[in-house]
Amino acid sequence: MSNTFGKLFKVTSFGESHGEAMGCVVDGCPSGIQLNEEDIQKDLDKRKPGKGIAGTKRKESDKIKILSGVFKGKTTGTPIALITFNENQKSRDYSNIKDIFRPGHADFTYNAKYGIRDYRGGGRSSARETLARVAAGAIAKKILAKEGIIINGFVKELGGVEAKEFSEKDMENIYETELRCPDKKATKKMEKLILKTIKEKNSIGGVVEVIAKGVPAGLGEPVYEKLSAEIASSLMGINAAKGIEIGSGFMCTKMNGNEHNDLIESKNGKISFLTNNAGGILGGISTGQDIIARVAFKPLASIGQKQKTINKDLKNVEIEIEGRHDVSVCPRAVPVVEAMIALVLVNALMEQKARK
Amino acid sequence: MSNTFGKLFKVTSFGESHGEAMGCVVDGCPSGIQLNEEDIQKDLDKRKPGKGIAGTKRKESDKIKILSGVFKGKTTGTPIALITFNENQKSRDYSNIKDIFRPGHADFTYNAKYGIRDYRGGGRSSARETLARVAAGAIAKKILAKEGIIINGFVKELGGVEAKEFSEKDMENIYETELRCPDKKATKKMEKLILKTIKEKNSIGGVVEVIAKGVPAGLGEPVYEKLSAEIASSLMGINAAKGIEIGSGFMCTKMNGNEHNDLIESKNGKISFLTNNAGGILGGISTGQDIIARVAFKPLASIGQKQKTINKDLKNVEIEIEGRHDVSVCPRAVPVVEAMIALVLVNALMEQKARK
Amino acid sequence: MSNTFGKLFKVTSFGESHGEAMGCVVDGCPSGIQLNEEDIQKDLDKRKPGKGIAGTKRKESDKIKILSGVFKGKTTGTPIALITFNENQKSRDYSNIKDIFRPGHADFTYNAKYGIRDYRGGGRSSARETLARVAAGAIAKKILAKEGIIINGFVKELGGVEAKEFSEKDMENIYETELRCPDKKATKKMEKLILKTIKEKNSIGGVVEVIAKGVPAGLGEPVYEKLSAEIASSLMGINAAKGIEIGSGFMCTKMNGNEHNDLIESKNGKISFLTNNAGGILGGISTGQDIIARVAFKPLASIGQKQKTINKDLKNVEIEIEGRHDVSVCPRAVPVVEAMIALVLVNALMEQKARK
Amino acid sequence: MSNTFGKLFKVTSFGESHGEAMGCVVDGCPSGIQLNEEDIQKDLDKRKPGKGIAGTKRKESDKIKILSGVFKGKTTGTPIALITFNENQKSRDYSNIKDIFRPGHADFTYNAKYGIRDYRGGGRSSARETLARVAAGAIAKKILAKEGIIINGFVKELGGVEAKEFSEKDMENIYETELRCPDKKATKKMEKLILKTIKEKNSIGGVVEVIAKGVPAGLGEPVYEKLSAEIASSLMGINAAKGIEIGSGFMCTKMNGNEHNDLIESKNGKISFLTNNAGGILGGISTGQDIIARVAFKPLASIGQKQKTINKDLKNVEIEIEGRHDVSVCPRAVPVVEAMIALVLVNALMEQKARK
Repeated sequence: MSNTFGKLFKVTSFGESHGEAMGCVVDGCPSGIQLNEEDIQKDLDKRKPGKGIAGTKRKESDKIKILSGVFKGKTTGTPIALITFNENQKSRDYSNIKDIFRPGHADFTYNAKYGIRDYRGGGRSSARETLARVAAGAIAKKILAKEGIIINGFVKELGGVEAKEFSEKDMENIYETELRCPDKKATKKMEKLILKTIKEKNSIGGVVEVIAKGVPAGLGEPVYEKLSAEIASSLMGINAAKGIEIGSGFMCTKMNGNEHNDLIESKNGKISFLTNNAGGILGGISTGQDIIARVAFKPLASIGQKQKTINKDLKNVEIEIEGRHDVSVCPRAVPVVEAMIALVLVNALMEQKARK
Repeated sequence: MSNTFGKLFKVTSFGESHGEAMGCVVDGCPSGIQLNEEDIQKDLDKRKPGKGIAGTKRKESDKIKILSGVFKGKTTGTPIALITFNENQKSRDYSNIKDIFRPGHADFTYNAKYGIRDYRGGGRSSARETLARVAAGAIAKKILAKEGIIINGFVKELGGVEAKEFSEKDMENIYETELRCPDKKATKKMEKLILKTIKEKNSIGGVVEVIAKGVPAGLGEPVYEKLSAEIASSLMGINAAKGIEIGSGFMCTKMNGNEHNDLIESKNGKISFLTNNAGGILGGISTGQDIIARVAFKPLASIGQKQKTINKDLKNVEIEIEGRHDVSVCPRAVPVVEAMIALVLVNALMEQKARK
Repeated sequence: MSNTFGKLFKVTSFGESHGEAMGCVVDGCPSGIQLNEEDIQKDLDKRKPGKGIAGTKRKESDKIKILSGVFKGKTTGTPIALITFNENQKSRDYSNIKDIFRPGHADFTYNAKYGIRDYRGGGRSSARETLARVAAGAIAKKILAKEGIIINGFVKELGGVEAKEFSEKDMENIYETELRCPDKKATKKMEKLILKTIKEKNSIGGVVEVIAKGVPAGLGEPVYEKLSAEIASSLMGINAAKGIEIGSGFMCTKMNGNEHNDLIESKNGKISFLTNNAGGILGGISTGQDIIARVAFKPLASIGQKQKTINKDLKNVEIEIEGRHDVSVCPRAVPVVEAMIALVLVNALMEQKARK
Repeated sequence: MSNTFGKLFKVTSFGESHGEAMGCVVDGCPSGIQLNEEDIQKDLDKRKPGKGIAGTKRKESDKIKILSGVFKGKTTGTPIALITFNENQKSRDYSNIKDIFRPGHADFTYNAKYGIRDYRGGGRSSARETLARVAAGAIAKKILAKEGIIINGFVKELGGVEAKEFSEKDMENIYETELRCPDKKATKKMEKLILKTIKEKNSIGGVVEVIAKGVPAGLGEPVYEKLSAEIASSLMGINAAKGIEIGSGFMCTKMNGNEHNDLIESKNGKISFLTNNAGGILGGISTGQDIIARVAFKPLASIGQKQKTINKDLKNVEIEIEGRHDVSVCPRAVPVVEAMIALVLVNALMEQKARK
């Protein structure tokens, strides 16, 4: 088990989906940062299920509490423990799934690894753990904002429907939309697709894109902790992620060098790149352009359809997963993706400062 | 700078493209493993430029030397230092590029980060560093082989041409081909494309796929060092990588849950999955199926065409990069991709043993 | 701030003396270990202030709660969060010390480092943090016990009075004594000294010794994570520690090589050492003999006598520290020293297994 | 095996006493530092055997070579590989010790841990490894010197003879003396003792003290990477170390709180401490006073007297260790102790900068 993320700004996460509490300890936060629970709650609320069509039934207030590391409204440099107590930990009967390995879930692998698993809501493998990431990321974002770094994520694609037409403003106001998609036309199509998918007791995947603006040139630690590698690790570690792209991503394989190379220009002493196929990273180090990354999320594994699988005694069984689940992880994954990028960047920033 | 990879089987790499030497220190290798220079040389030779159409002109014997950690043909448990002395370190004149930031290269970012850069052949940012990875990976592969784990990489796509028809045997004999592509028909097309690209002084990108067979279920450390996250980091950290996929990868976004979930079946007490969209990893832990990953490599940045860029004094200039370069990184990246997967797996294996 | 201890069995501690809570997250604990709150509480109770002469006035129940990582009485392999809520967090008025740097305390240095400090009871620098170590150590001890490793600490010296005559049994029953000293005669003298010291509003230092039995030969990771180095770090990191010895310790400087070398003998295939000046460690690796270490603890900094110091405005002031404090850290440090050794050994054990 | 020291300024060491080469890779060194081989050689020469009474017979030029990370006389921020090729690697016959576990040496424990050992000159367990530390430390010292931090070590005690009377100047010129002792009178006595010890084919231990001046207040990372804990680890990890003290050290146990507390005074806005029992560290953080530490080194294990021991077949045998060895590790340990303190401080400095 490796539940710590980061080298200088470290997050250690704990908790199971239906255990007593979820939380994390943030170690290495600079002192003197203004911080209160509301700063964190604001981001946590972004990952709560939507009220409308895309949401799970689980209703948790997810109230965050700061247990340490903050004194008189400021960080002291000591570890910041954050906690949310689970409210509905005993609300369900798990007898139907406790001995069964749900397809597409981590039931089988946790059992293979540990020989024991907390089957309540997926235990530690539940996406509820991302709560800890978002909470820690909220602190990271505050530090980054002081340096002029702003991170925006959004749903780029859902079930094959792609967001194409939108303004920067649409992107900034993404949390006012339920699907976290800045393209209104595409959103309409997505909504239809979601309704259809619910009816079919099925699920869909999608792509979340994230853009970090204001990142200075020079961040990232070659050769094994390249900024690109750290981003890839941080995003691929999110539940349900199957692919990661930076800049041109997989499209780069269809391009020639003369198209892909971002030419550099100088005007009145100001450097600019004519394109950004690099996604803001060259040789593992930030260029000063926007950092652009994308994550492919698989369709949610929990579906209402009947599926073949096995139980702990290696008997073949069938399972129908009850309850109303999210149809896609994407809308709720947006703040998680942002948080992970924030954690990567705050670490890169600190490491860069260390050697100045 | 972070030049160490791995937690229990650690590789610390050093050296610049045209410095004295390239090498690495492998720390944490179990004792008692039979190891000689030939074991490592064999893999290193796989990343040497091809003799034919796809190769760079650089001719280095890249003879590896073991400096420590092996006694009477066996590893002793102490650090294994591996070194290759560069032969052509003074063979070129760099005056034309020493003050210029080549587009698509790390020249600009190294300068932004460090305020100084070794411009000879890209210095530390050169893909020549991957020599250290392949050397260390060769040791990792020996350990994995003892546990029945075999890793095979190959060129899956080159400049849009995809490898589709091939047998397992074709894949195993990949190093007998120059393009490291198992599909003979596709190879023909790729060859034509390469010749055309050379003529146009251009370059092309592509995809390398890697498959690890024999990985037991249970490897990988959730939640922040998931096997998938470690693979993503290890592959995205290779020079020129822009995208990573595991299993279904970006295709997952076009699938429904009922298609994507890999159903599980038991026959006479033997577990099997009906599909492998997971790419052998669920919840960040290996399932026991083949582990499948893909890397998208951008077209090589070094092209002979005239390109706009700037120099250190922020003057706009034009550059034509001399010499004959590889047209694509892909064929030579195959052993590098294999090596990185080997390093990830040997670490995961050790960590799993630590808690048994 | 670096609040994580250990590489494979990691403890991340949080909390301030008079904040909401103290606790830790234990990550990397093997799955399947029987564990309940009572297992941990038992050790925690050992570090509570004595009822008699040596104790502080602070009265806390220090009830530990397991928040995660344990399911149906067994560890699941996921992070184990442990927490104790502080009960008397608002019980005092700190206005007299809030702007003053108490001599011998960390007030000055925390302020120098962070520019801010939680002055309530020393904040993070309080020895109350050792609660987290003891809690985590209790889990480590359970794992070690399964391998036959038992750790016993005791007060070896207090204010110059040394424990000399005692049996192994006395040592094992140390927690039945208030001063944690196995030598009854010495204890009497210590008690007198304590009463005198209290009367003088002063404090005394001492030495805690710890012995680990049953440690197999071969643990420890040369050359920079030698077992001796890890022990030194773990013990010197305890509040008020000023010196560390292993085996012969500083006495070694008065010995000749022929006296100091532990000769080895074999009888019926069983190896034994004739002496144990090494303290069970040679070349940073355990020999299989008892591991013996000692820590020197300075006299407690909080004394009732009037002392010169300065305040935040760099004005010279005088301070008398109110309240009844411990006279010496030693008795209560015993379980902390044991816990740190347990954490070192469990990590060494796991790392050794990783390469088998 | 854990052969990497440091978190931000990392040293990875490799090599056996009589293997091909000894060396290290320094990763994380800031760019732009002037550095050449002479800078390092100067320090390496300090750990070479003395020409007179205290020296081993081994004659090595120990010429250091920089293989990477330096370009045109300046560090580039990339890993700096340093290497010394062993010259006398084949000069001896080891048949008499190859199957015998020398008392006081790591022969037995390396064999227990790894099941194999390089018996030539102690292999990896040889103090020759400290060459790598001194080389890396020389770079660290250059960085520290720029911040006004100067480190001086010296022999404080040898075989019971203590250095007492000396000036700061004596200490600064320590490397002009053979015994690295600043007290001339004590040196005379030490010399006599050494001659006597040689005659008796015996060895003696001693204490090395180290003082770091100019360390700013605020360095060190509580609670588990306290500056004191890092120093303890770094020094206890040196070959033959058995005890570590900081400031008052073990003497603290004979002092009362009112004597031990270092009172603070302010004069014209300048803070001063009236004493320095803390050894420059409170709560694990530097106070701005001199940092003072001491290491106890055991008498060297290699003595010419006949000793009882066992061989690999667990037979009882006798051994007389041939050749002329050092009588005490202390004089040659002085630059090693300095180097380790330099490595600790440069890491602490960088970590402090990271959060500013």
